[in-house]
Amino acid sequence: MITREERRDAQAYAAEQLTAAGIVLTDAERGAIEVADFGLSRLREQGLMLLVYVNTDRYCAKELVLYPEQECPEHRHPPFDGTPGKEETFRCRRGLVTLRVAGKELVLRPGDQHTIPPDTLHSFGAGREGAVVTEFSSASRDDLDVFTDPSVRRETVVA
Amino acid sequence: MITREERRDAQAYAAEQLTAAGIVLTDAERGAIEVADFGLSRLREQGLMLLVYVNTDRYCAKELVLYPEQECPEHRHPPFDGTPGKEETFRCRRGLVTLRVAGKELVLRPGDQHTIPPDTLHSFGAGREGAVVTEFSSASRDDLDVFTDPSVRRETVVA
Repeated sequence: MITREERRDAQAYAAEQLTAAGIVLTDAERGAIEVADFGLSRLREQGLMLLVYVNTDRYCAKELVLYPEQECPEHRHPPFDGTPGKEETFRCRRGLVTLRVAGKELVLRPGDQHTIPPDTLHSFGAGREGAVVTEFSSASRDDLDVFTDPSVRRETVVA
Repeated sequence: MITREERRDAQAYAAEQLTAAGIVLTDAERGAIEVADFGLSRLREQGLMLLVYVNTDRYCAKELVLYPEQECPEHRHPPFDGTPGKEETFRCRRGLVTLRVAGKELVLRPGDQHTIPPDTLHSFGAGREGAVVTEFSSASRDDLDVFTDPSVRRETVVA
């Protein structure tokens, strides 16, 4: 659970970081930035801000924004609708992101990118200055994500 | 046909425009920028610079860079391998791009985006200050593109 104030602050932080990365947003997009606490109620430590540009039944593109040292909990994108599950490419735009996938740890800095195969456990976290990461992928179904920590809930409750 | 000098200049222009749009490139990417004249040998008027971030069998992401008033000739992305053909979303990052699709003309400025259905004729051109456009799409097969002008060749010969 997060408060309205936490959500407002997180949206403002994300918009500011995206702007600092040279990304121009519309007003509607600024208001549509999703703030996810994964049901853990410790947004600054475990969470993520997301802006979805497009998500058709074939492909998806998003910006992910992380607070300094904020972590996205380990999860995988399982098969659905006859597809092998979401395949995704992370491209770091600003700051630094550490990506843990299939037992390996990769540090991505601006201009670095890495593709995560479908249905493969991964987690990631930002460095001391936070991070902006563009995600290119096949169709996205966040509601189907499988998290290692059973206490994770993908939907965020705003109090 | 373009000269080596035209290619070098176009790559340098594209890298400069991408940097001005806040996009960080690796040295390898700078050298991999594709310069396309569509076989028309008038690069500054008819052509495009492209940087492919990723192109799997499921999705693709590219940056498109246009010289001031440069045009990409009308074409469509036909069905292939049992798919309906490439579906793509253009998002303007810098400058201005005029997109003509299905009899309509749309002007995209930074932050504006539009999705083009598969197998649908479209063309686009930059405004006076050129343009940087991010393209999110399903899998891309440029070699299959069907152009309205029969003199177009998708492969560019460098003399």
